[in-house]
Amino acid sequence: MNEAIKVGVIGLGTVGQGVLRLLKDNADEITRRVGRPLRVTYASVRDPNKPRDCDLSGVTTVADPMQIARDADVDLIVEAIGGISPARELIETAVGRGISVVTANKALIAEDGNRIFDAARQTGASVAFEAAVAGGIPVIKAVREGLAGNRVERLAGIINGTCNYILTQMQEKGTSFDEALRDAQRLGYAEADPTFDIEGMDSAHKLTILASIAFGVPLDYASVSVEGITKVTPQDIQIAQVFGYRIKLLGIAKRHATGVELCVHPTLVSEKAMIAKVDGVLNSVVVHGNAVGEVGFYGRGAGGDATASAVVADLCDLARTLGVDARHAVPPLAFQPEAVQPLPVMAMADVPSAFYLRLLVADEPGVLSKLTTILAAHDISVEAILQREPHGEDDATVALITSVIPQHRFDHALTEMRALPFVREDAARLRVEKFE
Amino acid sequence: MNEAIKVGVIGLGTVGQGVLRLLKDNADEITRRVGRPLRVTYASVRDPNKPRDCDLSGVTTVADPMQIARDADVDLIVEAIGGISPARELIETAVGRGISVVTANKALIAEDGNRIFDAARQTGASVAFEAAVAGGIPVIKAVREGLAGNRVERLAGIINGTCNYILTQMQEKGTSFDEALRDAQRLGYAEADPTFDIEGMDSAHKLTILASIAFGVPLDYASVSVEGITKVTPQDIQIAQVFGYRIKLLGIAKRHATGVELCVHPTLVSEKAMIAKVDGVLNSVVVHGNAVGEVGFYGRGAGGDATASAVVADLCDLARTLGVDARHAVPPLAFQPEAVQPLPVMAMADVPSAFYLRLLVADEPGVLSKLTTILAAHDISVEAILQREPHGEDDATVALITSVIPQHRFDHALTEMRALPFVREDAARLRVEKFE
Ligand SMILES: NC(=O)c1ccc[n+]([C@@H]2O[C@H](COP(=O)([O-])OP(=O)(O)OC[C@H]3O[C@@H](n4cnc5c(N)ncnc54)[C@H](OP(=O)(O)O)[C@@H]3O)[C@@H](O)[C@H]2O)c1
Ligand SMILES: NC(=O)c1ccc[n+]([C@@H]2O[C@H](COP(=O)([O-])OP(=O)(O)OC[C@H]3O[C@@H](n4cnc5c(N)ncnc54)[C@H](OP(=O)(O)O)[C@@H]3O)[C@@H](O)[C@H]2O)c1
Repeated sequence: MNEAIKVGVIGLGTVGQGVLRLLKDNADEITRRVGRPLRVTYASVRDPNKPRDCDLSGVTTVADPMQIARDADVDLIVEAIGGISPARELIETAVGRGISVVTANKALIAEDGNRIFDAARQTGASVAFEAAVAGGIPVIKAVREGLAGNRVERLAGIINGTCNYILTQMQEKGTSFDEALRDAQRLGYAEADPTFDIEGMDSAHKLTILASIAFGVPLDYASVSVEGITKVTPQDIQIAQVFGYRIKLLGIAKRHATGVELCVHPTLVSEKAMIAKVDGVLNSVVVHGNAVGEVGFYGRGAGGDATASAVVADLCDLARTLGVDARHAVPPLAFQPEAVQPLPVMAMADVPSAFYLRLLVADEPGVLSKLTTILAAHDISVEAILQREPHGEDDATVALITSVIPQHRFDHALTEMRALPFVREDAARLRVEKFE
Repeated sequence: MNEAIKVGVIGLGTVGQGVLRLLKDNADEITRRVGRPLRVTYASVRDPNKPRDCDLSGVTTVADPMQIARDADVDLIVEAIGGISPARELIETAVGRGISVVTANKALIAEDGNRIFDAARQTGASVAFEAAVAGGIPVIKAVREGLAGNRVERLAGIINGTCNYILTQMQEKGTSFDEALRDAQRLGYAEADPTFDIEGMDSAHKLTILASIAFGVPLDYASVSVEGITKVTPQDIQIAQVFGYRIKLLGIAKRHATGVELCVHPTLVSEKAMIAKVDGVLNSVVVHGNAVGEVGFYGRGAGGDATASAVVADLCDLARTLGVDARHAVPPLAFQPEAVQPLPVMAMADVPSAFYLRLLVADEPGVLSKLTTILAAHDISVEAILQREPHGEDDATVALITSVIPQHRFDHALTEMRALPFVREDAARLRVEKFE
């Protein structure tokens, strides 16, 4: 087993605790990918008596985060306290001694990233910030590396879950902005002081970062035009709908002949566009490259686990560069060659699934009752059913969707149904797949 | 200027020509990202007289692709001829002499990838294959690196554009499978012999690759259960719709307690799921990680330019590892620090956009005519307009959406409209954004 990579985590709030949980829960998976285990050795906690939703055994906790940044025996540091100061000083101190830092701090990167990256360059350290934009969606990596062959023409994103939740509530329930905001606060989707989210500043921070990596321009938060969602009315949402549009808070970065457009504002988007369908707290970013055309991403933009997913991805990237052979840092099949291990592939008969079945049957009484009796005997529930009268010479149709069951159980029931005298043909059997 | 990285391209078909075009058109952008220019120095063409939709000046063309694999003075090679043989021998020869290869060849990677990666490991060369799955969508990178902190529980994808086009046609027009296939062939979305696509083999190749990088299992094409779309009927599509579902050809990889499920089949998905809304030739992959939850990606899965986007992204990744300091291969802002250059940020007044306007007006005759006269005088077309009678004491409402115009022009018109005696209030002005 290769030596562990030692990680210091500064700040054990929502994100910091998520990082500790994730590094523990997925330790095996992560080691198989990176080739070395990632182990949290230091964490800073302001209040040592506050209960934390993560396992701190084996972790040295310190009250002063600067101790981790300046002195602790760590290979990598996670900054998860947020805000400009002391986060900036902590990161500058860490990179100053050559330790790379992972941060989820969009405000800091958008406002002071240029100088932080300069400081890191002095020593050859890195500052990674995938978690700063769109939480768990790996959109920084996608734009920075996955679309590297493109000239990015424009991008637009729903990059604040609080606002998207509020606008979705207003759309679906017809509620006022104030009511939807209170609702979001009650559910923990909005802070007690929601200004930063609803006035668009948080989106502007993220847009600043996206625009830089898309266009190759310095971070320039001050130049973003920002308008929040507080003036959006149910009436406008309703009229937009009549026109075939949804209202979304978008961050937009676009090249024009004379410069770039950088703005955040409530925006009408056609209800047919994929981004219009991203509802609730979900985030989404759509990028238009001159080669690839439009590529879209969606997923959870916040929350401890989703944000930790991005932080840990950055840790894995950095951990790989700490190895002897950074050139082969990412193995072709994601996992280190010696960790690629077969798993048994299940026979489809054993795979559980919901099923769709369409039968052609003679048009006679008692058909449904006999079919459903067989299904019940095999402990199969029916989620939806439809019966259609015959047209002219045709047989009648029965179509249904079952609960999730192993295929062999469904097949046994089907064999019995086929044997019923009134069943002419099992015309179609398809699987049903559930998404979130 | 740093020395160019020399690229050899084997096969100048749809993908190969796209790669040459892209490396030329986006040369400046790519150099700014990678730090060194990428230059195609060799290409193989079977028929030198066949016209090619790319500029071959400065490129040495050879008839025998093995010449490039074995001897040519190149740093990186792109394999874009497809098929198992001689593609496999070419790649093995190239990696055998330590040259890394980028390929779009999903059949080859799915069927022989294990041995190809082993061969590459002998010399320390890499084999990159982002283009092999979902064309321009950077899904390999997302799963392999962006979601590295997760245990991937399951993934599902629309990974064959031909099938998705056919199913979308059947859904939207009610046509039969045969008719939709002919339609796809006429438009160039299906091959003359479409077997590979419609019987699900192409999806199975891609699913094999996705499953490996998601679960850390060896490539195992032979174990995938495959069912194509030829038996899907308009009737099932229609009944599924009644139940609130769409039918999509999905590749599915899922962990269960006893093993993994690997299959490709037509599948019912709730019409509310994002993936159900991915229509036409678009591809989409949805990944469920234990930390991030559900993350989705969509975009163009095929075509010369979109596929070349992925090939060139891989070339950029590999080119970065050829530099002196592979550790800092990817700069924080995507572009090399010395290439990060400000662009003028436009004043919002100059930014062109379509606008949504809602006015409260007195309920009197001639309102619409006077408003539209002002708009016409400013050369602003109206894309949609709606007038609502007053409710009780309220004013009447006029709402409209304009053509795309610079904001200052819209503002001038708005100033004039506001001055009209019957206009009580400009209650809302929002931007409208167009997506593909
Ligand atoms: N939450 C999300 O979903 C999310 C998503 C994306 C990005 N982010 C970003 O992630 C960062 C952290 O967010 P969070 O939600 O985890 O915040 P949080 O829950 O408020 O946690 C912040 C933690 O930092 C500690 N802390 C704050 N100031 C400190 C100081 N001066 N010295 C020492 N410790 C200090 C706090 O300690 P105490 O516990 O002792 O008060 C707390 O544990 C922010 O930059 C945020 O923008 C968050
Ligand atoms: N097209 C897409 O949208 C797409 C998307 C994703 C992945 N891919 C993959 O990309 C690869 C290339 O596809 P493509 O669409 O570009 O194919 P294509 O248009 O048929 O081009 C293949 C090229 O390879 C050349 N070639 C074939 N066999 C050869 C041999 N034995 N020796 C020398 N040259 C040979 C052909 O030469 P001639 O021109 O002289 O016949 C042709 O230029 C395939 O693996 C495919 O699966 C394609």
